[in-house]
Amino acid sequence: MRHRLTPEQYADGIRQGDRLLLSRAITLVESRRADDQALAQAVLGRILPDAGKAIRVGITGVPGVGKSTFIESFGTHLTQLGHKLAVLAIDPTSQRSGGSLLGDKTRMETLSMNPSAYIRPSPAGDSLGGVAHHTRETMLLCEAAGFDVILVETVGVGQSETVVHGLVDFFLLLMLAGAGDELQGMKRGIMELADGLAITKADGDNVPLARRAQLDYANALHLFPPTGTGWSPPVLTCSALSGEGIPLLWQTIVDHQRQMQQNGVFLQRRQEQQLTWFRALLRHQLDSRFYNQSGMREQLAALEAQIRQGTLLPVAAVQVLLASE
Amino acid sequence: MRHRLTPEQYADGIRQGDRLLLSRAITLVESRRADDQALAQAVLGRILPDAGKAIRVGITGVPGVGKSTFIESFGTHLTQLGHKLAVLAIDPTSQRSGGSLLGDKTRMETLSMNPSAYIRPSPAGDSLGGVAHHTRETMLLCEAAGFDVILVETVGVGQSETVVHGLVDFFLLLMLAGAGDELQGMKRGIMELADGLAITKADGDNVPLARRAQLDYANALHLFPPTGTGWSPPVLTCSALSGEGIPLLWQTIVDHQRQMQQNGVFLQRRQEQQLTWFRALLRHQLDSRFYNQSGMREQLAALEAQIRQGTLLPVAAVQVLLASE
Repeated sequence: MRHRLTPEQYADGIRQGDRLLLSRAITLVESRRADDQALAQAVLGRILPDAGKAIRVGITGVPGVGKSTFIESFGTHLTQLGHKLAVLAIDPTSQRSGGSLLGDKTRMETLSMNPSAYIRPSPAGDSLGGVAHHTRETMLLCEAAGFDVILVETVGVGQSETVVHGLVDFFLLLMLAGAGDELQGMKRGIMELADGLAITKADGDNVPLARRAQLDYANALHLFPPTGTGWSPPVLTCSALSGEGIPLLWQTIVDHQRQMQQNGVFLQRRQEQQLTWFRALLRHQLDSRFYNQSGMREQLAALEAQIRQGTLLPVAAVQVLLASE
Repeated sequence: MRHRLTPEQYADGIRQGDRLLLSRAITLVESRRADDQALAQAVLGRILPDAGKAIRVGITGVPGVGKSTFIESFGTHLTQLGHKLAVLAIDPTSQRSGGSLLGDKTRMETLSMNPSAYIRPSPAGDSLGGVAHHTRETMLLCEAAGFDVILVETVGVGQSETVVHGLVDFFLLLMLAGAGDELQGMKRGIMELADGLAITKADGDNVPLARRAQLDYANALHLFPPTGTGWSPPVLTCSALSGEGIPLLWQTIVDHQRQMQQNGVFLQRRQEQQLTWFRALLRHQLDSRFYNQSGMREQLAALEAQIRQGTLLPVAAVQVLLASE
């Protein structure tokens, strides 16, 4: 059996920037074993005062937008400025057996060799809610280990973007310039979550297209009502190839952070994220307790079939369920 | 004490189109008294086979869009075509003591005198979830009474639109032509729920503005990905004053209904609405049972304060709560 460290040993090691212990603590966070979970919570409780100090940036974008290349270029710029960077991925579809770990390292070759960067692939085979929960705790561990910029990347599609938005201070949407229907393939409403948009691959022959897309999106964003935070999401262009636009993009994120800290929105957003997390967890526990009762699934399926057919009203079905407990 | 009818008497009366009994049954549905609720459910169980046959249309729009005038004109057109129309309002802010009933009748003077129309104001002082629940059941009663078009109007702001969308077959968004930022004041994402948009007050000097707005919105809608139902929400213009555009708008709704019935989306949408209603109710009951435990509110408030301050992690707080039950 592997030697088991105490919570103090984990916490001390993490605070000193020990990457091996950081990785092992993250594995505890991701584990489903009750003893691992208990240990993880004990470690988290100890590092909590050292967490929360990073700028948390969420990054999403349509397939083909060049997200990995962008993160390579963006991340390298950050480390050149002296930042320590952790890259986390939210990908509920990943299968570790399929090589997600190797895959992530290969995807970001330069960054994975960079001593100021830490890349942690998404845990495999978990629900989106589970992934979000782990990523939130992993973020805290990385912050305690001294990483001052956390990039949370969505790899999956669909609901992941909303989840990432609930984890970060700045939500960056990468867009591809192209003809016609630009939002094609993107979940409705994602643009409204963005704190900023960046049109990628703005290099070479693609520059005019990128400028055109920039204008289109700026016009589209103008149709949305103000965010109520005093911040108007800008539309930028950048090139991972030439590096153009990358410094301005980071400056924009820094400006946003400063402005939100000054007007109090930063703290408010983080507090709301914590409360939302708490309420979601509580609900999840209450639901599990109810739905995991023996025979509940079968009874529920039978009632839902009747509701579907229109032969049973929801109120009556709820009464049946609660009475039979 | 008022003479209490049997569920059979209610159901028979409603099926024969007795408006007094219909109104009394709706009052039962809206009542918080346990005996009223039991009677309401017994009535609903009996009329269920006769319900569900109307076209259900949700109508919302920014303040000043002229919703009441529109409904007057639209509703009158429908009754002229031989339809029987029920108008229900979702307004969680209404206060019956403030004269919501009188208010609604005054707002729609012509329609309220029309023997083929039935206007039911929103129940007062209830939560949005409560209002939605009552409106759903009221809709069933109206359908059993022979109304073949149900208009559900949002009077409140904010979340009401989403709730109405979950009640209807066609969700109509009324928009005002105007300079500048058209979506101002409208909740983000509402446009994405719409099955159709109509620019109101397209008469006189306002016609060019309305046409311009029509084009703008059509372009904006084009940016959204397809709805997956084979239906592209059209943008129409209309005038309650001249009646222009009203017949085409109704024809559009009828076309939508026919198309959705043919491709199966109609049935699917209704079944999903029923299941969503059931799950929301079940969740509500489970939550009530938990949160109404004695001392729970105080304990929750204390834990949330610690979470806000960042001194307690959500996981730990949930453990405390569930252990103390």
